Amino acid sequence: MLLSKIIDLIKKGNSGFISSENIEEINIKSAASLENASKNEITFLEENNKLRDFISTTDVSAIIIGKNELLIEEIKKRKTSIIIVENPRVAFAEILNIFETKFKQKKGIDDSANIANSSVIGVDCYIGPNVIIGENTIIGSNNYIFPGVVISENVEIGDNNIFFPNCVIYQNTIIKNNCIVNSNTVIGSEGFGFIPQNGKWKKMPQTGGVILNNEVEIGTNCCVDRPAVGFTEIGEGTKIDNLVQIGHGVNIGKNCAFAAQVGIAGGAIIGDGVILAGQVGVNNRVKVGNNVIASSKCGIHCDINDGEVVSGFPAMQNKSWLRSSSVFKKLPELAKKLRQLDKK
Amino acid sequence: MLLSKIIDLIKKGNSGFISSENIEEINIKSAASLENASKNEITFLEENNKLRDFISTTDVSAIIIGKNELLIEEIKKRKTSIIIVENPRVAFAEILNIFETKFKQKKGIDDSANIANSSVIGVDCYIGPNVIIGENTIIGSNNYIFPGVVISENVEIGDNNIFFPNCVIYQNTIIKNNCIVNSNTVIGSEGFGFIPQNGKWKKMPQTGGVILNNEVEIGTNCCVDRPAVGFTEIGEGTKIDNLVQIGHGVNIGKNCAFAAQVGIAGGAIIGDGVILAGQVGVNNRVKVGNNVIASSKCGIHCDINDGEVVSGFPAMQNKSWLRSSSVFKKLPELAKKLRQLDKK
Amino acid sequence: MLLSKIIDLIKKGNSGFISSENIEEINIKSAASLENASKNEITFLEENNKLRDFISTTDVSAIIIGKNELLIEEIKKRKTSIIIVENPRVAFAEILNIFETKFKQKKGIDDSANIANSSVIGVDCYIGPNVIIGENTIIGSNNYIFPGVVISENVEIGDNNIFFPNCVIYQNTIIKNNCIVNSNTVIGSEGFGFIPQNGKWKKMPQTGGVILNNEVEIGTNCCVDRPAVGFTEIGEGTKIDNLVQIGHGVNIGKNCAFAAQVGIAGGAIIGDGVILAGQVGVNNRVKVGNNVIASSKCGIHCDINDGEVVSGFPAMQNKSWLRSSSVFKKLPELAKKLRQLDKK
Repeated sequence: MLLSKIIDLIKKGNSGFISSENIEEINIKSAASLENASKNEITFLEENNKLRDFISTTDVSAIIIGKNELLIEEIKKRKTSIIIVENPRVAFAEILNIFETKFKQKKGIDDSANIANSSVIGVDCYIGPNVIIGENTIIGSNNYIFPGVVISENVEIGDNNIFFPNCVIYQNTIIKNNCIVNSNTVIGSEGFGFIPQNGKWKKMPQTGGVILNNEVEIGTNCCVDRPAVGFTEIGEGTKIDNLVQIGHGVNIGKNCAFAAQVGIAGGAIIGDGVILAGQVGVNNRVKVGNNVIASSKCGIHCDINDGEVVSGFPAMQNKSWLRSSSVFKKLPELAKKLRQLDKK
Repeated sequence: MLLSKIIDLIKKGNSGFISSENIEEINIKSAASLENASKNEITFLEENNKLRDFISTTDVSAIIIGKNELLIEEIKKRKTSIIIVENPRVAFAEILNIFETKFKQKKGIDDSANIANSSVIGVDCYIGPNVIIGENTIIGSNNYIFPGVVISENVEIGDNNIFFPNCVIYQNTIIKNNCIVNSNTVIGSEGFGFIPQNGKWKKMPQTGGVILNNEVEIGTNCCVDRPAVGFTEIGEGTKIDNLVQIGHGVNIGKNCAFAAQVGIAGGAIIGDGVILAGQVGVNNRVKVGNNVIASSKCGIHCDINDGEVVSGFPAMQNKSWLRSSSVFKKLPELAKKLRQLDKK
Repeated sequence: MLLSKIIDLIKKGNSGFISSENIEEINIKSAASLENASKNEITFLEENNKLRDFISTTDVSAIIIGKNELLIEEIKKRKTSIIIVENPRVAFAEILNIFETKFKQKKGIDDSANIANSSVIGVDCYIGPNVIIGENTIIGSNNYIFPGVVISENVEIGDNNIFFPNCVIYQNTIIKNNCIVNSNTVIGSEGFGFIPQNGKWKKMPQTGGVILNNEVEIGTNCCVDRPAVGFTEIGEGTKIDNLVQIGHGVNIGKNCAFAAQVGIAGGAIIGDGVILAGQVGVNNRVKVGNNVIASSKCGIHCDINDGEVVSGFPAMQNKSWLRSSSVFKKLPELAKKLRQLDKK
């Protein structure tokens, strides 16, 4: 695609086009990251990115950057075309959308799919080989169900969802529209509810369900459990990475982002816009406010107010944790100093 | 179901019925949690539960509670029927058993199941679509094998077990009776045994197997590895949540409960009645005594005696950890104070 | 197999045969660990192994040990045959290779496999029941693909690889030779790339792929994501345990070993020979040098130089962490002592 045409698309997009400089009309064949990019490719660079040093050696044909005069000057010295926007990452995402090789959209139901008579399938769906759909399950239109997916009975699925290979949806799950469930993820499995009785564990029946609202995306090998009563619910627009555990009865707000290996224990309530970094844990029944950010490996054991940034275990304010952690490294010296003072 | 009939069932159950008060004969249609419950529903409330405040506003028809006079008085002021038992959670579990919509029990072997000629299948089993059963595998009676399950060769399975969709059982696994293996869990995969040799990793063949004793339940996306020799074994009545790793040659006692994302490294020996909270790790070859409790994210790096409650990493007594953690937050102040004293 | 024949095999192997003593010519039927071994079995014992005490009670017929005079004397008092080698574990691995019951190698393509017309399958492959292979996928010779595996379109697979049941390979994945992918692992799923925009998450298209080089082995229920552009790559000979997350664009060197539940965030660069113990986390874009060792639960948040041994979170030198951790336990006392000094 000609660079001029790409610039036109950026102007129409959401990245906040500012200006272009040094433009050479050239055919752009693909997008790449700065350290790998070469002639006839386009790339982007954000403030403070480690890749910045590659500017002096790259052969890339075009760079999308923010309004950083120093960088612009540096690139101008080279024969590289420059596109300046408010948000280079957004512009790059829009360009990748053009170059992405979309998987060939198939339609129809594969002969080997096993679909219960009492289920209802909407129009324009693809149901791949070896897919199983249980009794009384209702599936809307334009859903894409990859091979090996198992959807149990009494499931309700809206429109435009994608289910990647071998994921499993248990009974009583409600999935709205435009959701993505990645491979080998399990939605609606039995919550871990056991009552100690005479040294053994008696099961609390898990009769509830799971609700995924619009635009929820869930990574690979995740688990979202159903509760004893009521619903485990994930709010609109929330994105979840791989190997994440969502316990029974958890309620997650809108537009959250959870990184890989996060675990949310049963009954926790998570607000809107919450960001949990990798391997964070949230205790059962804890309430996490809106827009909270927890850094990696944080253990949230008690309620957190709106907007807090927390770290460590037990979770504390991030700034405080950074200070305490830097003292932690010096503990042996401190202890020694204290012994010396004590002797005086 | 009429409330009087529910009370009769509770009397016959294991929750320790004490008395009922304020009983209005009404039709109970379902069970719910206190914050969601409304007319014609039944709920329960335990001591110190955060939901307690909902008593003043709920429309629920009946509440099961313990012998707490204050609570009883408070509920009596309302038109709510009260059922008093020793253990409200147990009574609620028994009621959920009544109201639970059981999945329709199917029987027989689906045409698309692929069962090796040398395998033996007991009576009253259900074997769903696309199930694979390998050579020389013996399956007892009344097992329920959901679609997409793969059971390899030389596996022995007793009676009354449930295998949820797409779980995988490797060779040399022995599963006794009344076990549950949830979706996408893998039992009997190769232990992670490699020997460093000339800068590369030489494989230690993993020729052993896995034994799940009676009433073991394992969540979704778990891994139970087989060892080089002998067996990885999980004791009777032990319950395991999602995304849990059980390393090769681990031996787990009876009636343990492990929360999600727990990891037990190879050769660890875990006693009876051990409770491990979420994201706990146990180092290889460590011995954990009976009835040990480890709080979330604890890292058990050395042997733990019977009955200990441990926290933190490296694991220490919970009480000690709580005290040290509270000082950790104040480390910057302490360091400052120490510098001041030192200057004097 | 006669013990003399086993000794011959050890002599030809890589364990560094030194001598044998006390040899009784006997038929060895199997290999076992010392605590379980009995007559007609062979076992091994390494320095400092807890199992050492079993020497005084075992009935095992032969023991492989290192050159430890004390141990040799102790065993000589019994009627046990002794084989002395440089590396007993390597010798034991070689013996297990003899006794291992190999799964019966099948050949051919099962009738229920669903293979796209445009794909190419090499010679001597086994493709099991319900396997799916997508368009334009090229599979080399002598691959073993167990039931339920899904391989998407545009995948390139070399020779001699094994894919265990129900694993999933997404598009644009390249797998070289002699690799193993265990059950329910997902290779090439979409990286977790979202850009915050107006309070919502806009997707960064993930158009890249994944490369597994020769001799890579990946455990069960792992995830290896593809990046926005370029490749996520795992170097030759690297071994990965279960439930591990490899983020988008991660580059891992040769001959690394990662234990269970490790998580590597997007864009991290890991050197050769790196060992990460269980539940270790590596932050995004961090660079970890060659031959680094991180102990369990370590959180690597910044670059680590070649050869370092790190622990804790934030990661610090292991020796320093051990000292600080031992002071951590005494923090309440230290704080008390400081208050006392302050009062004086």
